[in-house]
Amino acid sequence: MKSQIANSKLSDKGELSYNWAYNHMPALSRIIEKTKEEQPLANRKIGVCLHITKETSALIIGLKTLGAQVYLCGANPLSTQDDIAAYLDSQGITVYGWRGQNTSEYIDSINNVLNSKTEIIMDDGSDVHALVHSEKKFLELKIIGGTEETTTGVTRIMALEKSGLLRYPIIAVNNAKTKHLFDNRYGTGQSTFDGLLRSTSLLIAGKTVVVCGYGWVGKGIATRANGLGAKVIVTEINPINGLEAHADGFQVMPIIKAAEQGDIFITATGQKGVIRGEHINKMKNGAILSNAGHFDIEIDTKYLDLNKKNIIEVRPHVDQYNMKNSKMVYLIGKGRIANLVAAEGHPPEVMMMSFSNQLLSAIYISKDSHKLDKKVYSVPEEIDNSVAQNSLESTGINIDNPTKEQIEYEKSWK
Amino acid sequence: MKSQIANSKLSDKGELSYNWAYNHMPALSRIIEKTKEEQPLANRKIGVCLHITKETSALIIGLKTLGAQVYLCGANPLSTQDDIAAYLDSQGITVYGWRGQNTSEYIDSINNVLNSKTEIIMDDGSDVHALVHSEKKFLELKIIGGTEETTTGVTRIMALEKSGLLRYPIIAVNNAKTKHLFDNRYGTGQSTFDGLLRSTSLLIAGKTVVVCGYGWVGKGIATRANGLGAKVIVTEINPINGLEAHADGFQVMPIIKAAEQGDIFITATGQKGVIRGEHINKMKNGAILSNAGHFDIEIDTKYLDLNKKNIIEVRPHVDQYNMKNSKMVYLIGKGRIANLVAAEGHPPEVMMMSFSNQLLSAIYISKDSHKLDKKVYSVPEEIDNSVAQNSLESTGINIDNPTKEQIEYEKSWK
Amino acid sequence: MKSQIANSKLSDKGELSYNWAYNHMPALSRIIEKTKEEQPLANRKIGVCLHITKETSALIIGLKTLGAQVYLCGANPLSTQDDIAAYLDSQGITVYGWRGQNTSEYIDSINNVLNSKTEIIMDDGSDVHALVHSEKKFLELKIIGGTEETTTGVTRIMALEKSGLLRYPIIAVNNAKTKHLFDNRYGTGQSTFDGLLRSTSLLIAGKTVVVCGYGWVGKGIATRANGLGAKVIVTEINPINGLEAHADGFQVMPIIKAAEQGDIFITATGQKGVIRGEHINKMKNGAILSNAGHFDIEIDTKYLDLNKKNIIEVRPHVDQYNMKNSKMVYLIGKGRIANLVAAEGHPPEVMMMSFSNQLLSAIYISKDSHKLDKKVYSVPEEIDNSVAQNSLESTGINIDNPTKEQIEYEKSWK
Amino acid sequence: MKSQIANSKLSDKGELSYNWAYNHMPALSRIIEKTKEEQPLANRKIGVCLHITKETSALIIGLKTLGAQVYLCGANPLSTQDDIAAYLDSQGITVYGWRGQNTSEYIDSINNVLNSKTEIIMDDGSDVHALVHSEKKFLELKIIGGTEETTTGVTRIMALEKSGLLRYPIIAVNNAKTKHLFDNRYGTGQSTFDGLLRSTSLLIAGKTVVVCGYGWVGKGIATRANGLGAKVIVTEINPINGLEAHADGFQVMPIIKAAEQGDIFITATGQKGVIRGEHINKMKNGAILSNAGHFDIEIDTKYLDLNKKNIIEVRPHVDQYNMKNSKMVYLIGKGRIANLVAAEGHPPEVMMMSFSNQLLSAIYISKDSHKLDKKVYSVPEEIDNSVAQNSLESTGINIDNPTKEQIEYEKSWK
Repeated sequence: MKSQIANSKLSDKGELSYNWAYNHMPALSRIIEKTKEEQPLANRKIGVCLHITKETSALIIGLKTLGAQVYLCGANPLSTQDDIAAYLDSQGITVYGWRGQNTSEYIDSINNVLNSKTEIIMDDGSDVHALVHSEKKFLELKIIGGTEETTTGVTRIMALEKSGLLRYPIIAVNNAKTKHLFDNRYGTGQSTFDGLLRSTSLLIAGKTVVVCGYGWVGKGIATRANGLGAKVIVTEINPINGLEAHADGFQVMPIIKAAEQGDIFITATGQKGVIRGEHINKMKNGAILSNAGHFDIEIDTKYLDLNKKNIIEVRPHVDQYNMKNSKMVYLIGKGRIANLVAAEGHPPEVMMMSFSNQLLSAIYISKDSHKLDKKVYSVPEEIDNSVAQNSLESTGINIDNPTKEQIEYEKSWK
Repeated sequence: MKSQIANSKLSDKGELSYNWAYNHMPALSRIIEKTKEEQPLANRKIGVCLHITKETSALIIGLKTLGAQVYLCGANPLSTQDDIAAYLDSQGITVYGWRGQNTSEYIDSINNVLNSKTEIIMDDGSDVHALVHSEKKFLELKIIGGTEETTTGVTRIMALEKSGLLRYPIIAVNNAKTKHLFDNRYGTGQSTFDGLLRSTSLLIAGKTVVVCGYGWVGKGIATRANGLGAKVIVTEINPINGLEAHADGFQVMPIIKAAEQGDIFITATGQKGVIRGEHINKMKNGAILSNAGHFDIEIDTKYLDLNKKNIIEVRPHVDQYNMKNSKMVYLIGKGRIANLVAAEGHPPEVMMMSFSNQLLSAIYISKDSHKLDKKVYSVPEEIDNSVAQNSLESTGINIDNPTKEQIEYEKSWK
Repeated sequence: MKSQIANSKLSDKGELSYNWAYNHMPALSRIIEKTKEEQPLANRKIGVCLHITKETSALIIGLKTLGAQVYLCGANPLSTQDDIAAYLDSQGITVYGWRGQNTSEYIDSINNVLNSKTEIIMDDGSDVHALVHSEKKFLELKIIGGTEETTTGVTRIMALEKSGLLRYPIIAVNNAKTKHLFDNRYGTGQSTFDGLLRSTSLLIAGKTVVVCGYGWVGKGIATRANGLGAKVIVTEINPINGLEAHADGFQVMPIIKAAEQGDIFITATGQKGVIRGEHINKMKNGAILSNAGHFDIEIDTKYLDLNKKNIIEVRPHVDQYNMKNSKMVYLIGKGRIANLVAAEGHPPEVMMMSFSNQLLSAIYISKDSHKLDKKVYSVPEEIDNSVAQNSLESTGINIDNPTKEQIEYEKSWK
Repeated sequence: MKSQIANSKLSDKGELSYNWAYNHMPALSRIIEKTKEEQPLANRKIGVCLHITKETSALIIGLKTLGAQVYLCGANPLSTQDDIAAYLDSQGITVYGWRGQNTSEYIDSINNVLNSKTEIIMDDGSDVHALVHSEKKFLELKIIGGTEETTTGVTRIMALEKSGLLRYPIIAVNNAKTKHLFDNRYGTGQSTFDGLLRSTSLLIAGKTVVVCGYGWVGKGIATRANGLGAKVIVTEINPINGLEAHADGFQVMPIIKAAEQGDIFITATGQKGVIRGEHINKMKNGAILSNAGHFDIEIDTKYLDLNKKNIIEVRPHVDQYNMKNSKMVYLIGKGRIANLVAAEGHPPEVMMMSFSNQLLSAIYISKDSHKLDKKVYSVPEEIDNSVAQNSLESTGINIDNPTKEQIEYEKSWK
């Protein structure tokens, strides 16, 4: 089946963009170069559901270079970069995705990927894994394994594993240290503010930024908010995370209290209904609501829509909600993940690490899936370390090796 | 004479943009509201040469609201936002400016403003002040005073004053504490990285950022670079600034040595020829060159153009220079001021302070210019404090008042 | 057997010090108050080997309050606060410890504790656990379980477990999140600089601080070094840690290269021979060597002593080594753990968390040791969370509870 | 007249301490070495009123090395380091000072210095300058000039100048950039926390630190508080400073509101009655009060003493005030300047810069006092730059020189 994309004429622009990303992902290119000759993915059909960005294109071309046939759909209806889709299509990748899909088009695209009889599924948010396990027609697919990119998606497949229904091994790429310590933290931290600056152009210094959730994503966002001169308030449901935020010098309080003080709210919980009507009604006029989590469920946009007087799109990706009760707030990117909607998603340097894990995990599944059970697996430690090592070396950084004495000492208890 | 702008149909878009800025500049709107009735600028012809941005539109509409006739041109051929120009034109302002002027169009626009027989000149970079003092035909203009916005411009008018040729009093708005401590530092600090992120989308964390110049602008950039996770190197010619950068925890070294280590270079000196061929030849391939100073003379772009093999525009505002000697570097925004070319200039909250100083200085000149000599003046302390007070109050912040005892104590020496 | 302490007259001073600590450890006091009535440690003989500081006294009195008979020795020959030892003795604790023990006195003290037929062993560094497993005479001890406080000690007992020789369950208190995320990071981070400031009184701002090791301790030290205005260089042998340090904005390089650039060196690895002669010979004259790890093996002090011309104690805890090759360096606290030797160890607020884990782990062992195997265990998650919850509440901080909807959502995968 | 010191036997200890300071003040030693031969202070009688610390000893020995006869008293009854006093006495300096003077002893010491017929007065806080101008008997002194070290003292001599009574030129050393930008900010910033850590040993991370005053000292303290993990609240009476604190990411509010939230209060205003009874009564029990300003008038200790039930010295330099109304607060160092009382004052590296200014200013007065009016002068720019240059060079840092083109450009306005 042919690609379904917005405009194949954008291919040249997409190529420039691909090159920019690829050139700034040197660890990934190293790994591709090292394994290319071996063709470890020869003839494997891989279904990929990832945000169709310039960084993703570097992974996709990499998979193809290692022998795979790749079928690609987007992981979010609003995040596809159409020029990248066009470029990938021009390179023989089958792409189903364009910016601004409606929900049924989005689901159709996933179906199209699965209908290609993919053997390995690379997912971001686990919509594909969920669909495979929900519809009978996909029972016949011979899937040897999958991967999952995000915290949100890993939570879902863990629930799936617990339910006893999981049908193939899935590697939780998110759990690799070289993924979540970097992508979630430094990647989302920076790119969320990139999205906020592009969409609002406001000064962060002096603002009170409320970060909901202090996992790796929340930590990254709080760090960057602080680095840009904001006062940070953290809300949490986990006492250890809350205590950590406190010790990191941030104010910690219930969201109902933070609501009164914040200028900018950013959700990063992976949960639903985090910012609700009761909170919005306490906010200052002009408060800015944005989401850094995978799904658009963290801010209760339904409440906003049901109780609004009207909406004005005052800037691209900024909707001014004039509420019936005279409250006025701004919503960024319709409550969808702000860094992808209002900016370009994560920078290539962090995606380099995440996608090196994806690539090596795909190779691992391709070779060794027969040794794996129908479980959720961590990324093997060798892969994790190898990604770190390649990342350091390709950035020109050397570290020490342990001495013989130290290796001995590590093993001894006396 | 009619406005010369790109496209008057952009006026509606410009209005949204004006509103966004105006709503985020509450101190300015307070001051306008407080003084409106008095019409302190009634019938004054004011010539304004500022970057034509949404924030500037808030000042311009303010000047008009207070009674002035305003003639506006842009302070940089590449910084005009055409929708704002259209909106201002629709509001009865005479505007000469569009994005992408060539040099002669730029000079013509300044001439057009001056030909309107302006009595007060508000300048940014002192191109207008310089022109007035350079050409005979402007000898006849009855200018009662002017203002100047930038460090660069103040340096020029100080030189002009020293030469004995200055023909009217100029208030160095840049020297107000509520200007340079905020606009230069927090404004340029953030918006320069806004420009870098929009143009490159790269990760700042882990990068080595070389900041040339550690004045207020350089301090702001270094602080934000650090806040985004970069390693910072500062280069300076002033030993006190150099020592301050050192004590602030940054590496300080000559630029020839920094050239080898930097990933991103940002000039913020107000000087010319800061990054030269000899430095570029020492850089890593892929180094990024950008400028945060007023003029495009800090990076030696002539050297780049004379010694290049070819240029590829790899992303908007990013030119890849492949040099004859195989070196490859990226130049942001053609070496022009990156925050205005690749982003939207300073955020409204800092322009609120700078432009409150401009507005109050214009009123001051309008009323009291007969008391002033042909000199460069600081912004009167009352204006400076009033801008601070209005900014605090309009942000909802209260501070203490000194007690009687404390006022007494301040005066005593015993 | 009677206590062996320096001077029982210091008891009153020790009481003030105990009160100071206890009053600043509100989560610990809450837990003691809540469980006191139940007397969960009634008649248990507990042998404790911890640094004899004011914070430890709060734990020890707590153990006694809950019913235990406590035998205490110090975890380091130089870290005992003699007034605290006196106060504890006055409260009926048997204490073997005084500041400045020699090695055989130190070993004797451990033996004295063990000879008291302790059933639970609370250790810091695992010297006691190691001794129990090394000497035949201790084979007859009926130990039902133990705990271990430090990273270093956990490494040792993990090696012991691996060797198959472990004779009782040990709870790795260090592995509790409420321990290592706080004590190791914020505790050591601050107190190491407290030790450096007390001993040297030098300015940290502008200095180049080399942190060897980027585990939790190293992270804490690097963060504080940065917060005090230093330039930070990190050395590592683990590529993931190295990459994290890089992304955190620190320079990462091999120690042989860092040796040339550093002003202050701090080891935090838990390893031996980290700073060796080859490195010392590359250092600037006047470089400062200090250790934040448990044992005094991280800096090669033997090399220093073998190759010195002479030593001058230029300030308390600062030895100036004039080397035969004319190199001159300063060694802090003889290479022993600087925060305990030159300052007072961790602040009470972090020890509150570590020792709440110790206390609750001791109760857990006392109740449930029969359910445990001869293994190394993590602190049970309920204990960890309870410590966090008590810490937050006693600091006056509230956090959110998940809504019903959120609890549901957490469990679902659809 | 002979020295009046605590104990001349402490001289050897003082010498070690002097050496430590001198070796860490390389710019000062360079300047002394360079000018020694010339003996520019030959036979000048210089009266010095400075905190008698190891850093001061380096200045005093320097003055003597350049030919001066020096008479020294302390600038605070509690700040003298007795070993340093002994060492200076052993080197032929006449010293009147010991730790723990009462007020009349303190005044006597100043009188003793003045009675030595000093020609130049070096002061810290302007107690000596004030005394000279208050008492008739000092009318006959032939003082050719003086210097003043602190913000507080400069405020006093400015008031004195305004009153028309000033009898000799005074150089406001505090106003040198190489003084107040460094000493006040980095020096007090670090050493205030050094004092707090030594006296309280508490964790700063997570605490709410209220900084009263956001001048250079307050800025330094707020920066370090933040760097140690605290949440910072700033109180101010100056709107520009308040706005700066806000933009720096700190909470700004009136002190009456901050009183409720703070854990640690630090005054840095140079004013009196900053923390008063009305504030103390709003504080949390256990709040810590400390002062970083020159005089012990910023915290209303009289209120504390009048309304207390009792005081307990719970640790050295920590007084627990149990108030009649059951409030309990801790006062550090009796409200006197905490870094000097509870720690060792500023680190040598910053005193190097301040005292290089003092030394060069004394030489300048000695040579050129006849050219000066009875006014307060800034430190000449050449001295300021020379201190910066010597500081950079002696720290091994090089900076750039402007090119010829740049020097030309600086002068031009076209």
